[in-house]
Amino acid sequence: MDESIEYTPIGRIRTPFDDPAGMPIQAAATATGGTVELEERFAPGVADLEEFSHAILVYHFHRGDPEPSLSVTPFLDEADRGVFATRAPVRPNRIGLSVVRVVAVEGATITVEGADVVDGTPLLDVKPFVPTFDAPEDADVGWLEGVDDPGAVTADERFTDADEVNRE
Amino acid sequence: MDESIEYTPIGRIRTPFDDPAGMPIQAAATATGGTVELEERFAPGVADLEEFSHAILVYHFHRGDPEPSLSVTPFLDEADRGVFATRAPVRPNRIGLSVVRVVAVEGATITVEGADVVDGTPLLDVKPFVPTFDAPEDADVGWLEGVDDPGAVTADERFTDADEVNRE
Repeated sequence: MDESIEYTPIGRIRTPFDDPAGMPIQAAATATGGTVELEERFAPGVADLEEFSHAILVYHFHRGDPEPSLSVTPFLDEADRGVFATRAPVRPNRIGLSVVRVVAVEGATITVEGADVVDGTPLLDVKPFVPTFDAPEDADVGWLEGVDDPGAVTADERFTDADEVNRE
Repeated sequence: MDESIEYTPIGRIRTPFDDPAGMPIQAAATATGGTVELEERFAPGVADLEEFSHAILVYHFHRGDPEPSLSVTPFLDEADRGVFATRAPVRPNRIGLSVVRVVAVEGATITVEGADVVDGTPLLDVKPFVPTFDAPEDADVGWLEGVDDPGAVTADERFTDADEVNRE
């Protein structure tokens, strides 16, 4: 319906996760350290970010099966679900989001906790996390209702294509 | 540093906001109705989404000054801030996020509340909002700390280029 939209990565997310299998499946779930390395020319853009305790990373799922699937069985479930009701990477536009804790900002580098992405993930945007905007207090979680502790689950081979990245 | 990444919009967000000036500035702040109209072929992808009370819309800021700015004066402040510490649209990659309430899902159309975007905004992705992943309980909000009720603020002419879209 529309012409395509082009973005250029502003940096990379560095994490200890070379191999997506076994990786924790969502950011809030882990305190694993990582760094968000923006290109040096973007350093003025991260001013004031260190005053926020959390940031939202917007990135591109650069690994894994590039074929989108509209119906997936997520890590946290045994039934097929519509892909837009999951966080799986096999979406039409392979955009990922993670809320991370901001530990420090120095130059164009942000030290974070909770970056549950594979090392080298291309970064598209960083936004401050603002509860008034981003955190409704009365959220229901659909098929995730029955999952005891989604944060404790790690990825398996699902959604992988050879050694590829997994999400929820 | 990287080759560019291409996405194709999966639909459009329809809202009463033809003119960005005067629009509420973030989704959680308003109960204004809107519809998220995906292309019909994506209907299977929204299965199960109606079980979630809230969804995250990922979209492209298609209107407004296309020139990125690394330092901006946001609607909610009087000082210059790094663009990655704001939600302003004049970012290197013009990606926007809004958390909206899911009212109904029918075919490929999602009826929502709180879509604070201009009518016709190109939609890139829809994700379920999951508090465990998306809502840290102990968030500090930096320069927004002194703002009484960010949800009550509406956009002005800032960031506009002629009749363009505003954000925070």
